[in-house]
Amino acid sequence: MYEELVVIALGGNAIKQAGEKGTTEEQFANVDITAKQITRICKAGYLQVLTHGNGPQAGALLIQQEEAKDLVPPQTLACCGAMTQGQIGWMFQNRIGFHFKNEGLDYPVSTMITQVVIDKNDPDFQDPSKPVGPFYTEAEAMALKNDKGYIIKEAKPGEVKSWRRVVPSPKPIDIYEKKSIKQLLDIEALVIVSGGGGIPVVEESDGSFSGVDAVIDKDLSANKLGQVLNADYLLILTDVEHAFINFNKPDQKALETITLSEAEKYQEEGQFASGSMGPKMDAAMRFVRWGGKASIITSLDKALDALNGKTGTRIVKD
Amino acid sequence: MYEELVVIALGGNAIKQAGEKGTTEEQFANVDITAKQITRICKAGYLQVLTHGNGPQAGALLIQQEEAKDLVPPQTLACCGAMTQGQIGWMFQNRIGFHFKNEGLDYPVSTMITQVVIDKNDPDFQDPSKPVGPFYTEAEAMALKNDKGYIIKEAKPGEVKSWRRVVPSPKPIDIYEKKSIKQLLDIEALVIVSGGGGIPVVEESDGSFSGVDAVIDKDLSANKLGQVLNADYLLILTDVEHAFINFNKPDQKALETITLSEAEKYQEEGQFASGSMGPKMDAAMRFVRWGGKASIITSLDKALDALNGKTGTRIVKD
Repeated sequence: MYEELVVIALGGNAIKQAGEKGTTEEQFANVDITAKQITRICKAGYLQVLTHGNGPQAGALLIQQEEAKDLVPPQTLACCGAMTQGQIGWMFQNRIGFHFKNEGLDYPVSTMITQVVIDKNDPDFQDPSKPVGPFYTEAEAMALKNDKGYIIKEAKPGEVKSWRRVVPSPKPIDIYEKKSIKQLLDIEALVIVSGGGGIPVVEESDGSFSGVDAVIDKDLSANKLGQVLNADYLLILTDVEHAFINFNKPDQKALETITLSEAEKYQEEGQFASGSMGPKMDAAMRFVRWGGKASIITSLDKALDALNGKTGTRIVKD
Repeated sequence: MYEELVVIALGGNAIKQAGEKGTTEEQFANVDITAKQITRICKAGYLQVLTHGNGPQAGALLIQQEEAKDLVPPQTLACCGAMTQGQIGWMFQNRIGFHFKNEGLDYPVSTMITQVVIDKNDPDFQDPSKPVGPFYTEAEAMALKNDKGYIIKEAKPGEVKSWRRVVPSPKPIDIYEKKSIKQLLDIEALVIVSGGGGIPVVEESDGSFSGVDAVIDKDLSANKLGQVLNADYLLILTDVEHAFINFNKPDQKALETITLSEAEKYQEEGQFASGSMGPKMDAAMRFVRWGGKASIITSLDKALDALNGKTGTRIVKD
């Protein structure tokens, strides 16, 4: 019987390591390593909701869609997100299911396709900045801009294929499938949801929700999941054991337990890089501000130790 | 409050009509038509589990994987199946969710990624016959045979690209995620599962279940779902209102309510074509033989009338 619920946001290296091609077999091998850690966390008595990134998988799928565009129509970015939820979710449920069985843990493991509601007036729609998909030549990029209305930006000036599509990265405001997720948690299932940050949907004037070509930050979606599911902890896994202040300076210091006020002060000082630790800290602080017991940032292999208070960067209430 | 559970197997035209390119928008338009019928069935008091084919979507995805193979590695067929479950499941949950809301039906609609267990000794592994993916020239086909161990067969003799990969179509023996599906049915959720017949998995000697490059018949998976979920009805939707005997002959006759024994007699006589109505009748008969109240074969627009006994071909116990 579980006592505490933790929402875990898995980083990209939980599925595809840098330098790998990304075959199904390679990805299963990485997922298996993650699945063993998830199983240890289950044995330690935590009920878990998992979410994960989809950057490399969505990137590969977008390249595939592009290369075959004269033969079969590319699906929308939102649809590609749904596809990677199925792909990655399957790999996790398969390997976690195996390790649960090996350890005598009789809990279901299920992936649920998840829509995450965003506001159509989110300010990020005014100035999209999240790059997605392949690089293009200027001519290709301009053609896509004209044909499909893509917003394109130069990402690698000087290179032949220097242009890239950018999409908005709006804030998540609700998890559409929360009722079903809660129902599965009632039987202590491990639920894999909201992969890639979730399929972004906006409410239309007729009350329907339609998919939007945007990418929601997966850590912010994890925070939102934590709130709607009333979780105790938000655990953000990345490639380092701790967040640092004065990073790469003589007085560099690993952060252990800090209060929300301290975290906010460091964030204001610009201690956390905007493309990496900054958004994770932002999600972590939002969860504690909402009322979560703690947010923890650490690496996959330290996940259980960090949950148990032995390592990692832990943000707690003042 | 629902009184009876029906497992519905949707045909390919519920998602992509013949002649369409298969853009996300076209598919959503078809799914919307289906979603309205599903909503009518819900209003009439039936609890529903939906499953669906994925032929055109998996076909498109396999072409995309092939065309980009020099840039990113193609995923396995099993993995592509998981991707189409996410893709198609999302479209259905999105549009059914909308029509439910419009009609004041407050039931969750959720897609669950589903693994379907098959026997690694299934006889179909000896002589695979289910064609998948693009057509190849003989040279391309032989290269795939040597490089990847594909089983290839000539599908369109005389054409330049006449060869095609074939995979086994083993019988489903269990639905891996049945416990989670039942839990969602307890809150009267509409659950979309086992798309494309489900991701085929076999049990390995270490107790793990691994994905297999095979395609399970979606109607047989629907029958298996009906059994493990203890459903009342199996409803197989196709492009005709009835099954026929003496099809295309002067004494052609639409079948209405028939007993299992009658259906078995017609099947033995070869009344149902092996590539189309035959497998549907096979799945329908298995469900009634197991103990289901009835199996029904009809078209999407007649689905509710057929459930209510007004049309369609209905197979009942003797």
